[in-house]
Amino acid sequence: MKSYTDYMWFNTKNKVEFINITGEVETCLKKSLIKEGFALVSAMHITAGVFVNDAESGLLEDIKEWAEKVAPFNINYRHHRTGETNGDAHLKNLLIGHEVIVPVTKGEFDFGPWQQIYYAEFDGQRRKRLIVKIIGE
Amino acid sequence: MKSYTDYMWFNTKNKVEFINITGEVETCLKKSLIKEGFALVSAMHITAGVFVNDAESGLLEDIKEWAEKVAPFNINYRHHRTGETNGDAHLKNLLIGHEVIVPVTKGEFDFGPWQQIYYAEFDGQRRKRLIVKIIGE
Amino acid sequence: MKSYTDYMWFNTKNKVEFINITGEVETCLKKSLIKEGFALVSAMHITAGVFVNDAESGLLEDIKEWAEKVAPFNINYRHHRTGETNGDAHLKNLLIGHEVIVPVTKGEFDFGPWQQIYYAEFDGQRRKRLIVKIIGE
Repeated sequence: MKSYTDYMWFNTKNKVEFINITGEVETCLKKSLIKEGFALVSAMHITAGVFVNDAESGLLEDIKEWAEKVAPFNINYRHHRTGETNGDAHLKNLLIGHEVIVPVTKGEFDFGPWQQIYYAEFDGQRRKRLIVKIIGE
Repeated sequence: MKSYTDYMWFNTKNKVEFINITGEVETCLKKSLIKEGFALVSAMHITAGVFVNDAESGLLEDIKEWAEKVAPFNINYRHHRTGETNGDAHLKNLLIGHEVIVPVTKGEFDFGPWQQIYYAEFDGQRRKRLIVKIIGE
Repeated sequence: MKSYTDYMWFNTKNKVEFINITGEVETCLKKSLIKEGFALVSAMHITAGVFVNDAESGLLEDIKEWAEKVAPFNINYRHHRTGETNGDAHLKNLLIGHEVIVPVTKGEFDFGPWQQIYYAEFDGQRRKRLIVKIIGE
């Protein structure tokens, strides 16, 4: 079994920002030389997520609006007693999920026609990290 | 390390339909000859999900109703400017999740007493695909 | 490829309870002798979840309150015709997710600074089980 580990850093301009990382994760896959296996793409912070969906700009805005509706900012979260104001970002992380597993077949992501990997920042404007770990052969 | 890859196609009668695929995924596991490892079951389209829950018909209807409540159809989604009308199906995919990993122990799914694997179609009446990929030994 | 399988049992005092299991899962990792790979942590019941988030007591209460808001108790769920009253716990399981994959690098969980693994009981006061399965080398 081979394994490959890499990290990406983000420091977004906006508090909420979705970044298509499919190309960068493909670069990791090429470097790994793994032909059959699983790629884990996982946010290492608890106020950011990773999801797979369509690279359509209108939809990405819909997803942001939806996440805000289902897990809204609220100054009264108990978590804010610690001095933080990002309680909603923790909830959005749970809503969207913080990781995906991508199947690798014949050295490529075994994706459907519209699947793209997104890093979902919900509490940006600070340095945050993501792990790509691929195992297989 | 062994790996096994298979695909399932769906073309549901209804727009929203949940299909118990536990038996088909077990057939994949038998063919794989893998005794210890992980099985990934992942929708290859971004308007369908995969989840693990109870094979109870009332509950399945509750889940459909709940998904519609939390991620409702809305003609005004920005995504619909592309000509699509399935914005809600993209959001339901994010709510439910598009993949599960099932542990494989001694050649069987290492499941609790009620765990069943469901394909969750949120935008059916068209051909859509799912991948089963199993890695292990 | 090595694999390691272990189980944890829970019988919580309260219906809803979140339990930090990071230390126990780390003990499994040490026993496994696996240095590079993936650890799956997955609830074996369909009314409990597993998530990764911050060990901050206020936030944990916020998450409970949020899960109840998004997937509330409702006596009228169809699932209750079976005699159960835990329909909401099934929905909360789908909201939060029932499993996480943790990357293992150099024999340690490859986590960010605040990532902790939680068992999320949504229908407790009964014996329930969770699986930890680690594969790698």
